[in-house]
Amino acid sequence: MKIKLEIAYDGTHFAGWQKQKTPQPTIQGTLETALEKLLKHPVSLIGSGRTDSGVHAVGQIGHFSTEVDLERYNLLRALNSITPQDIVVKNAYYAPDEFHAIASAKRKVYKFLIHNSEVPTALRHRTTSWVRQPLDLVYLNQISQLILGEHDFKSFQSAGTDVKSTVRRIYSANWRQIGKNTIEFTIVGNGFLKQMVRNIVGTLLGLHKEKSAHEELLAILDKRDRRFALGTAHACGLYLYRVYYPAALDNRCRKI
Amino acid sequence: MKIKLEIAYDGTHFAGWQKQKTPQPTIQGTLETALEKLLKHPVSLIGSGRTDSGVHAVGQIGHFSTEVDLERYNLLRALNSITPQDIVVKNAYYAPDEFHAIASAKRKVYKFLIHNSEVPTALRHRTTSWVRQPLDLVYLNQISQLILGEHDFKSFQSAGTDVKSTVRRIYSANWRQIGKNTIEFTIVGNGFLKQMVRNIVGTLLGLHKEKSAHEELLAILDKRDRRFALGTAHACGLYLYRVYYPAALDNRCRKI
Repeated sequence: MKIKLEIAYDGTHFAGWQKQKTPQPTIQGTLETALEKLLKHPVSLIGSGRTDSGVHAVGQIGHFSTEVDLERYNLLRALNSITPQDIVVKNAYYAPDEFHAIASAKRKVYKFLIHNSEVPTALRHRTTSWVRQPLDLVYLNQISQLILGEHDFKSFQSAGTDVKSTVRRIYSANWRQIGKNTIEFTIVGNGFLKQMVRNIVGTLLGLHKEKSAHEELLAILDKRDRRFALGTAHACGLYLYRVYYPAALDNRCRKI
Repeated sequence: MKIKLEIAYDGTHFAGWQKQKTPQPTIQGTLETALEKLLKHPVSLIGSGRTDSGVHAVGQIGHFSTEVDLERYNLLRALNSITPQDIVVKNAYYAPDEFHAIASAKRKVYKFLIHNSEVPTALRHRTTSWVRQPLDLVYLNQISQLILGEHDFKSFQSAGTDVKSTVRRIYSANWRQIGKNTIEFTIVGNGFLKQMVRNIVGTLLGLHKEKSAHEELLAILDKRDRRFALGTAHACGLYLYRVYYPAALDNRCRKI
């Protein structure tokens, strides 16, 4: 049986999603260990994407296979009692055999949260990125429209991965105020390159005081070279918010 | 000169506001050390109230005295660069000599945040208290009205402090939904006894499924004995949100 999990995590204390030999635990490694403890067989948990060290998730999707009869467990309660508090399995489904967390994904939504104030935040420094200078959301929204559609995002790809194509399609990219001092950037695309959202946010924030931001942003895209993009925004503000799959697959998932 | 500070903190990793000899640091102790480092003289920082271990603050108020010319510093920036990230001084004012963080306080606002969902929260387990069963806010609001006005709240006072009177006046006590799975209880009073808000929240939550909650709550108040109140809600959900002082004093404060 194919099992689909919806997972949330505070990435602060993890070395990212992907299992690796680091002193710091990973999300994938921690969840596989928990599943193996519960199901008593080796588990390989595939995530929809490998979030970086420090990046959070509200709706990461993963899948694994098992022949264990899960009806015997209160699966969510059992899993969440084993995992550390920073990782929560929010939902579990029986998925069709052809479901694959990466290959079936159609669209992803990332959010980036900014604490925009002269003074830092005591209560949300783990979950927002602090920007001291006031941000002009109208202007940020204007220049963000330049990245909509299909582009080669090679300039916004950090080193360290091998992908066949660096062309991605962005469906929307919007900035809005969601609290007195909180700004939310939401970006939806058919896929994202390594650190692409953080490189886009860092570049948009870096350009946002420039009069010629439009031209500069187009020039950076055109270069197809990471050295021309501006800074990488901090991981602590980034959330993998939601992963969309085809309705034909969703309709055949059944809550456990 | 009397200096008034507005302070926010994530209380998770502190042994409460009040300075004491514990392995865990305290908010008061940490701030006094930071101020002393900056001003080069001993500092005694008086807080409007001693929040318990694990309790947070959005707008705690403290005062101290100094003869150092603070105009020489960018005070907030200097202080916040010394304190740990979990403590932020949000504002600093020159206050009139008669200002006293405890004695001058007229009203306090506490908030209690609940993550109300079948599954726990990965991203806010430090800053909300988890309640699994669905809460009936209409009913909670109804029974909460019973504590409005002046009452002897001795039944809601935890052991460990000596106060002259256990009579307090509650101005408002309201429950509302502030997000998909988040419930906020806001209580305003002229003062609160030790753990009074947590004991009130614990009792209201404990009673909220009872048909005779009205009678039981009145009976608990009437007993004037802590043994009759129900549980103490978790510290992680509680915030000292705001402290009100007389306008005559506020008007004589000047931002540094």
